[in-house]
Formats: sequence, C-alpha cells, structure tokens
Amino acid sequence: RATLRPMTEARILGGFWSRRKRANREVGIPAGLRQLEQAGNLANLRLAAGRTTGAYRGKYPFQDSDVHKWLEAAAWEFGPSLETHAGHLVQLITQAQQPDGYLNSYYQVFKPQARFAELDFGHELYCAGHLIQAAVADARSSGGMALLAVACRLADHLDTVFGPDGREGIDGHSEIETALVELYRQTGTTRYLDLARILVDRRGHGLIGDRSFPASYYQDHEPVRTAKTVAGHAVRQLYLNAGVTDIAIETGDGELGQAMERQWEDMVATRTYLTGGVGAHHDDESFGDPYELPPERAYCETCAAIASIQWSWRLLLLTGRSRYGDLIERTLYNGFAGSVSLDGKRYFYVNPLQVRDDHPVTGRQPWFKCACCPPNIMRLLSTVDHYAATSDQSGLQLHQYATGSYGGGPAQVRVRTRYPWEGTVSVEVSHTSDDPWTLSLRMPHWCRRASIVVNGVPLDIEPVDGYLRVTRGWTAGDVVVVDFQLLVRTTVADSRVDAVRGCAALERGPIVYCLEAVDQPPGVRLDDVVLDVATKTQWQPDVLGGVVTVAAAGWVRERGDFSGWPYGVRSQLGERVSLLAVPYFAWGNRELGAMRVWIPVT
Amino acid sequence: RATLRPMTEARILGGFWSRRKRANREVGIPAGLRQLEQAGNLANLRLAAGRTTGAYRGKYPFQDSDVHKWLEAAAWEFGPSLETHAGHLVQLITQAQQPDGYLNSYYQVFKPQARFAELDFGHELYCAGHLIQAAVADARSSGGMALLAVACRLADHLDTVFGPDGREGIDGHSEIETALVELYRQTGTTRYLDLARILVDRRGHGLIGDRSFPASYYQDHEPVRTAKTVAGHAVRQLYLNAGVTDIAIETGDGELGQAMERQWEDMVATRTYLTGGVGAHHDDESFGDPYELPPERAYCETCAAIASIQWSWRLLLLTGRSRYGDLIERTLYNGFAGSVSLDGKRYFYVNPLQVRDDHPVTGRQPWFKCACCPPNIMRLLSTVDHYAATSDQSGLQLHQYATGSYGGGPAQVRVRTRYPWEGTVSVEVSHTSDDPWTLSLRMPHWCRRASIVVNGVPLDIEPVDGYLRVTRGWTAGDVVVVDFQLLVRTTVADSRVDAVRGCAALERGPIVYCLEAVDQPPGVRLDDVVLDVATKTQWQPDVLGGVVTVAAAGWVRERGDFSGWPYGVRSQLGERVSLLAVPYFAWGNRELGAMRVWIPVT
Repeated sequence: RATLRPMTEARILGGFWSRRKRANREVGIPAGLRQLEQAGNLANLRLAAGRTTGAYRGKYPFQDSDVHKWLEAAAWEFGPSLETHAGHLVQLITQAQQPDGYLNSYYQVFKPQARFAELDFGHELYCAGHLIQAAVADARSSGGMALLAVACRLADHLDTVFGPDGREGIDGHSEIETALVELYRQTGTTRYLDLARILVDRRGHGLIGDRSFPASYYQDHEPVRTAKTVAGHAVRQLYLNAGVTDIAIETGDGELGQAMERQWEDMVATRTYLTGGVGAHHDDESFGDPYELPPERAYCETCAAIASIQWSWRLLLLTGRSRYGDLIERTLYNGFAGSVSLDGKRYFYVNPLQVRDDHPVTGRQPWFKCACCPPNIMRLLSTVDHYAATSDQSGLQLHQYATGSYGGGPAQVRVRTRYPWEGTVSVEVSHTSDDPWTLSLRMPHWCRRASIVVNGVPLDIEPVDGYLRVTRGWTAGDVVVVDFQLLVRTTVADSRVDAVRGCAALERGPIVYCLEAVDQPPGVRLDDVVLDVATKTQWQPDVLGGVVTVAAAGWVRERGDFSGWPYGVRSQLGERVSLLAVPYFAWGNRELGAMRVWIPVT
Repeated sequence: RATLRPMTEARILGGFWSRRKRANREVGIPAGLRQLEQAGNLANLRLAAGRTTGAYRGKYPFQDSDVHKWLEAAAWEFGPSLETHAGHLVQLITQAQQPDGYLNSYYQVFKPQARFAELDFGHELYCAGHLIQAAVADARSSGGMALLAVACRLADHLDTVFGPDGREGIDGHSEIETALVELYRQTGTTRYLDLARILVDRRGHGLIGDRSFPASYYQDHEPVRTAKTVAGHAVRQLYLNAGVTDIAIETGDGELGQAMERQWEDMVATRTYLTGGVGAHHDDESFGDPYELPPERAYCETCAAIASIQWSWRLLLLTGRSRYGDLIERTLYNGFAGSVSLDGKRYFYVNPLQVRDDHPVTGRQPWFKCACCPPNIMRLLSTVDHYAATSDQSGLQLHQYATGSYGGGPAQVRVRTRYPWEGTVSVEVSHTSDDPWTLSLRMPHWCRRASIVVNGVPLDIEPVDGYLRVTRGWTAGDVVVVDFQLLVRTTVADSRVDAVRGCAALERGPIVYCLEAVDQPPGVRLDDVVLDVATKTQWQPDVLGGVVTVAAAGWVRERGDFSGWPYGVRSQLGERVSLLAVPYFAWGNRELGAMRVWIPVT
C-alpha cells in the first residue's frame, strides 16, 4: 500500500551528517550509557530484575524508555557488535521482564499495585513501544533475536490485556502504535498490527478524557479519523501520527492516510517554526493556536522535531510526495541539528528562535532529569541515513543529499556532495539492473533553479511534482550531476505570524541562519539590531567546525530618551553596523549570549 | 515616614466606578457567597469547626482564603450591616479556629500531620493574611471586634511559631507581610510589624529554595533588599512588595523603599502590558524576560493586576510620586476593569490582549476551581474609593478622578466628573480649614495639555512633578475645574517589545481600546486587519452600558496564493475597511470572538 520503500542499503559516508554521526557514536552514545547509570535508570532495572534491593530512583514512570531508546541507537550504530557494547543491558532487560511478559521497572518496583491503573500518565505502553523499537533495530541491524523475544513476550502481554478480548484502554502517551507496526513488519505477526489499529481507533472517545491535563493533551478529544488539526502535547501527537501513518501504509486504510495528510498540512501551514520546530507552548508542551509562533518562547521540544521527522518519513513512504522530504530536510538541518552540540556532548530540550540580551542563558546540558531528548537524538542520528533515499518499481529516489551509498530496487548509487554548503550533488551508478529505471532527485522547496548533467551532457528537464526525474537505461559508472542554485534568501513570515511582524530571517539552501551576540561588533546588543541587506557569504573552515557564514549590513537602533514606560516612544535608526550570521543549528557552541533568527527590518 | 496619608473619608458617589461598585454589591458579592457554599469552602470550615463530619472538598490548601477575601469585600461594602449579611460566617470562622489560634481548614481537616510542614505550597500564612485583612476591614468599616480577635489570636500564634524565638520559616506565597502591618496599624501591637519585618528579611536566603518550582517562583532566590527586578510568580512577588512597602512606610527603612522603587521601575519599563497587566507566562504564572510581552499569550492574571494596584498605592503613600497614580489609573481602567463582566456576574482569570480568529473562546466564568480572582475583584471594587485621594500637611491630593466625596487633612471636597469619557473634573470645597492649603491634581501621564479654572478665573500653571497644584486660602463653595485634554492616541511600543512590532494601539485618556470581531463589517477577520488612522470618537450610551467608541479606517489584507508554508510570502493590502474600537475593559461582553489591542499598521 506504500508508494515508496525504504532502501535495503543506506549508508552516509562523509560530509555534514557523517561528522554528527561520528560524534554520536564516539561521544554521545558512550556518555549516554554512563548517564543512565548515574541517573539510576539501570539501577531501577536491576531492582526489577531482582539483582539488588533498594528504592526506585527518580520520579518518572517512563525512565525505562531512556534505556530502550539508548539501546535502539546503539543497535543501529553498532549492529552485530551491540553484544560487545551493551550485551549486559539486553540481559538485564530480559531478566527484569516478568513471567507474564510485563516490563516496567517503575510499576514493578515502586507501584506494583497500580499496574495499568494509571494509563493517562503511567507510560507503560509508551515504554513498551520503545523496547520494541530497540528490539526491531537489533534484529534488523544484527539479526539478534534475544531482545526481539523480550519484545514479543511484552507485545503478547499487551495484546492479552488491551487486545480484542481485553479491556478498553489506551496509553496517555502514544508510541506503542508505531512500534507494534514495526514489530509486525519484523515478525509478520498480524496480531501486532491489529492491536495497533485497535489502539488508534479507541483514541478520541474519552477513555482518558480531561484529567490533570485536558483530553486534547493526550489526543483523546477527537477520533484520529476526524481530527482536522494537530493538538495538545506535540510529541504525543506526532508519535501517534507516525503510528497511524504506519497503519495506513500496512493496511491501505485511505481514510487514515487522508486524515494524516490533512493534519500535516495544517501543522505545516500554521504551527511550524521556520526551523521545522513545533510546539509553541511551554505550558503543557503543546501546539499553540494557528500562527501563534513566538520565537523567544518557542518550546520546540527536541523530541517533537524528531517525531515530526519520523511522521513525515512515513507520509513520504505512503504518498511519495516531495513536500514530506522538504520538511524532513528543514527539520533535520535546523530544529533537530541544533539540539545537540557540535562535539556531541550536550543537548537542548527546548529550542527557541530568540534569546534576548538579558535572558539568563544556560546552554545545552549533558543530561536531564526528564531525559527523553538525549537518547532520542542518539537514535535519530544513528538512523539519519535511512531518510536519504527510497525505491519503487520505477526506480530510485533521493530525498536527502548526503555523501554515501544507497541501494535498493533496481540499483545502487554512490552520492558525493558538499551539501548543504554547496548545491552540487554527484550521483554515480554503482550497480544497476539492465532494464531502464528512473532516478528521481527531490528539488528542494527552497530552490528556484537547478541544472542537471548526465555523463557530461546537460539535460533540459523541469521538476515534476517536486522531483527532477531522469529515466534511461543505466550502466555502472554513469554519473548524474545536479546543481541546486544556492542563494541567500531574506524570508518574511505570513502576516498572521504576529510574533515576527516587521522581521526577516536569513536562509541559504536548507540552512536557517541566526545572529549570535558573539559574532557582532563589541557593544552591539541584538535587541537593538535592524537588518538592511545580506552582503556576502563565505565558507569558513575554522568557524564552528566549518560553516558558510552570511555577512549583512544593518543599523543599531538609537535608544533616545527613555521615559520608563515602553509605549508611545518610537526609536530611530542609528549607526550603520556590520552583522554576521551563522547557521542556527550551530548556535550556543561558543560564548553564550543573545541569539535571534528573526531580525527586525524596521 | 509616609509622605501621604489615606483619606479619612473617601466615597465614590457616581460615574464609572459607581456602576461597577453597584454591580459588585448587588450581584457579585451575593453570588460569591453562594459559590463559596457550592464549591465547598464553607463546608470545609464547618468540618474544621466540628459542626459536621465528612471529607475535605477541593484540592487546594488555600481555599479558606476565598472566604476571607469575600469577607473582606463584604466588610468594606456593608460596614456595620456586615453582621446581617455575614454574621454567620464570622461565627463559623471563630468556631473553626483552634485553641492555640491556628486556623486553616485544609490542614485541620485533611492533613493535620502536616501543619506548617509544607510551607512552600501550604499557603497557611497566606490564608492567615487574608483573614487578617478581612478582620481589619471589618474593624475599620464597622468597628466590629469579633473577627479582629480571631485575627490577633492567629497572628499571635504565627508569632510564636515563626517569630524571633520561633523557627526560620517563610510562606511560599506572600500576603501575610502586608496583613501583619495592617494589623499593627489597627491594633498598635508592634510585634506584628516586627514579625512582618522578620519574614521579609528571611526571604531570598533559600529557606524554600528550588522545589517543584525554582526559588525565584517564591521570590526566595535573592534578598528583597538587593533584588533588582521583579521575578517569578507575579502575584506572589507583588503581594510581597506591598508588604515590604508597608514596612518601609511604618519603619522609615529607606533601603527597603529604594529597593521597591527600583523594582517598580524595572517592572513598568520592561514587563508591563499596555493595559497595566503583568505576568507574561502561563508557565509558572510568572514574569517573563524584559520586553517579552506577547499579547495572545499574556497571562496577566487578574490577581496580579490587583496586587500591582495595591503595591503602587503603597509606593504612592511612601513617596508622593505621581507615576504610581498613573499606573494605578491605567491598571484600574484596563487590566483590572476588564476582569469582570459589566453585569458583575462573570470573571476572567487570565486577561490576554489578543484573541485570534480561530481561538476557542470561553469568555468570563462565574467561578473557578482555583477561585482566587473573583473575591479579589470584589475586595478591590469595594475599596476602589480608597485610591482616589490622599492628604498631607500641605493639603489634599487627588490621584484618581471619580465623582464623590473625599475628606482628610485640612479639607473635604466634592468631585464631579464624567471621567474617563470626558476630561473635565470639577472639585468643590465642602469644608476647609482657615489656613491656606494646596490642592494637588495629578496630571495624567497620557495628558499633554490641561487647563484649570478657579471660581471662574483661569489659572496659568504648569504641572510640577506630575501634579497641578493650587495653593491658596479656601472657602467652602470654592470650585476648581480642571480640563484634561482627551485625544485619541495611536500608540506604538518600544522596538524591544518584539511581539507587537509593526502594530499600534488606540488609546484615549486612560482607556486602552481594542477591536472586537462583533463590531467589524461582516466577513472581516481580525487576523487580516491593518490600521490606517483613527477617524472619529463618539459617546454611545447604548453600547456596552455607555462607552466612547473610536472609529478607524484601515485595510483588510489580501491572502493571495497560499503555498501551505507560512514563510516567504508577503501579502498585500486589499480593500479599505471601516473599523470600530471599543474600550478593552468591555471586551467579551457580547458575542464572543476575536479581539485585539495591538493592530498591525503595515
């Protein structure tokens, strides 16, 4: 029922993401395991496994999921050598599982009487979902079966409790749905797919209802099939939608697919930041009103950016529409890439688009009490390769441009590029079937002009439905070079985005830029800067690990006489000033201070 | 130590506030008592009094304070006839008090083991403060001593527990400080003043520290004397500051007074909405960063507006500076007046400056689960007279202009005015001492030109330090007529108030205007409106109980082709449109819909 299929081989081998992946593998993932030990997550599992005695550590019922997400990242990253890196964790989890398949250290150790009694906030199915995802990752990347056996026993238990013959319950935090579909894909057991469907269709009928949070927080205010907009807690909504789209892919349920496309359109048109980040409210970590997108109070939880990518990917598979690749690109390079420091050591939970001059800045942190984001970043970085390409009967599609090797369907290709800093992408055919097939290259939404050359011969083709398509008989060694024109763009927002009226943002290719205080002339406060025009781009190998910077000219606003009342006084433009913008994803990696993506133009 | 003294007599007898006061007396206060019964507040006190048995109702530890605040309002409003209206409540509270003076139904009934053990959120001293305020109101307005005896027993108990020989504790929610000073003023017992001082000086040393909320939420992050800005939960901060200013007034502690003036300047210059509302964040109900004042997510809790008025009033008494009267006026007519419906039946907890076209609107509510605001509105309306005038050795000062009778110091005057709709204020001397004295009339901050006539003779005087001052020997029957020029102002914000860049607000006199959807031509969405120019003001006796409306001309923005991505597309001005603005305080009294104070001008 899906339009596109994931590649059988997808490996990023150089460039932008390769460096981030290396930091993840060599710094982030090893440090993560130490953090899980320090924070007590592993201690809690040892209690559940009966290896030690003592008190449950921490206060959240979803702490196992940090372990599971770390394990998923490690499984993707290390493949068959996971056993070396984390075999003891697999054993620990196996031992912690109860004979009936139940697995959740919080309820086993701390609240045994409340098992499945606090579904609104207990996160038991959510944690199970992440365990299943880890097991599927392990099985796919190493063929390992131990964790998959734990996952199946757990899924079987959930099916007994919540399945067709069980009780009518749903989890307050979605995640189990997409995990069950993945487990179905891995095992072929249709009961898992059925359970996912049942859980989705139960939602929106008040099984949770208004509790500490309103029903919309849990997406329980309206059935999935009729809801027109994303709502409530952003991560919950987007994990749910990933699962719903998975079900549409596997079952061909067109109503679900249409519901998902409709919600996605609403989200992108009215509730998405320029960085791809979503979730405007700190309060309830929720989506705001349409066009309510304040830059300084953007919540933009890292997990929401990740969930958005995961959902868009599934919609891309379902429909083959380029717009999903566009949003994935934007979110990857901006809202997501900014959530982890360049050295892989520190993380943002919240990703604002503005930090005022006087805002207390703390910067990225090595870990959090509520540690959902760091291991989520790890698992996305370990799988970012997967989002680059797909295949179908007609050929092979490239959606994201990263140096690497991609194989599936009729062919394997080798990609070389300095994207996102340069727009040239070279695609060399490594292996090919004898029959003609189509190479489809996503034409980025931001790009107005592209040229394409096949084996040195220019082709005159226009993008169709967002893809440049070359159909021919191929020979190994054929080379397609596409050049996407990269210009600095001065972007304004729809007038209904009140919070950035009278401002512009600088973009170049997929990269959103920002001003950081540290790059501006001494004494210039970002609160007073006015943008005139971008003047020059420059590749700077020694800045922030190598980025293209954008220089600009502007003014510093004069303060004039200030009456002590901030209304009724219009300040004047003062001195000219030279400004320097750096990629948003790289902010906060040097001296901490003010930052802004949207710069006043008046 | 105070510069100014409250009047011995201050009675509003007609006009704007008279109508609001009547609704409060005839509708709000009687309905409030029924709500306290329905919500269980009185039932809880009956449990504490041992009259009934059963379970504590509600979940908040501060529910007694709703009763106390209601009682304070009723005491001010009904004076000696409080006995008729609420004598049974006074008896109930008296009976609920424990032999040692302790009084708090939540801890007496629901959590007896935790008495004073949860100071961060237990609100026991906060509730005590409101009981004391009610008792002082009763004593002052009727001479009643029964409630005052309860208050003294309670204060004595607090002094034993937390006084010089007691434990080092402070309440997470200030209020007790100002109440203790009032009790000292009423009784002359210096121990109460001393205890207030001790509690203030204990603050900011981490006695509460970081808990569920950060220490700043409770103003426990920095000592009162050194804190430069308001911070944390707005109501807590402002109640604290009212108490601190009271202490400065009574003790002449200049350091405290300067600290308060400094914090006030910071608040007004950087964290106050055009309506006088404060508290930008829904999250933690807290102040935001400087200039972070989003209109649609303005929290602007009603109680914070009330607390701001109470604090500014004390600073006015301390310093005699007109700017405090200016902020009181702005907050009274806008942020505060809008919190209650014109009929006195319904209340806002949160007071935003913008409601988008697609925002789900609920409007004002008759009561809340957390019901701090409604009885707070009642007690402010029952005391709004108090804020109009003061006296000192030199004479009599008028700070707010309302038809009524004001007496104190050397004279009594009778004021007649149609303020805020007209700028003419007539002040007739009713009684006077034989010695010359000065009549001081606050020149509102918004007013650029005023004329003044004494007994028909124009005077040529300029405002000095924000007051027009007339010094002479007076005779009963002398009449001073001042005319403050009322013009419509198109107000822009300091450029650092990013959230309203490119917008203007309409103001006239002390009144902030807004557009409501219901007043605009059919089909015009407020999200698309652009303001050109105000065209006409008109007194409309039949609109919203009688208001001056402001007509304006503008455009409706064209949507054009919308790509589904809200960035990169600049929309054009479309059709001309006639707009109608009404006072902000009156919004939400008709058909509910979109509203905005700040209107785009580009």
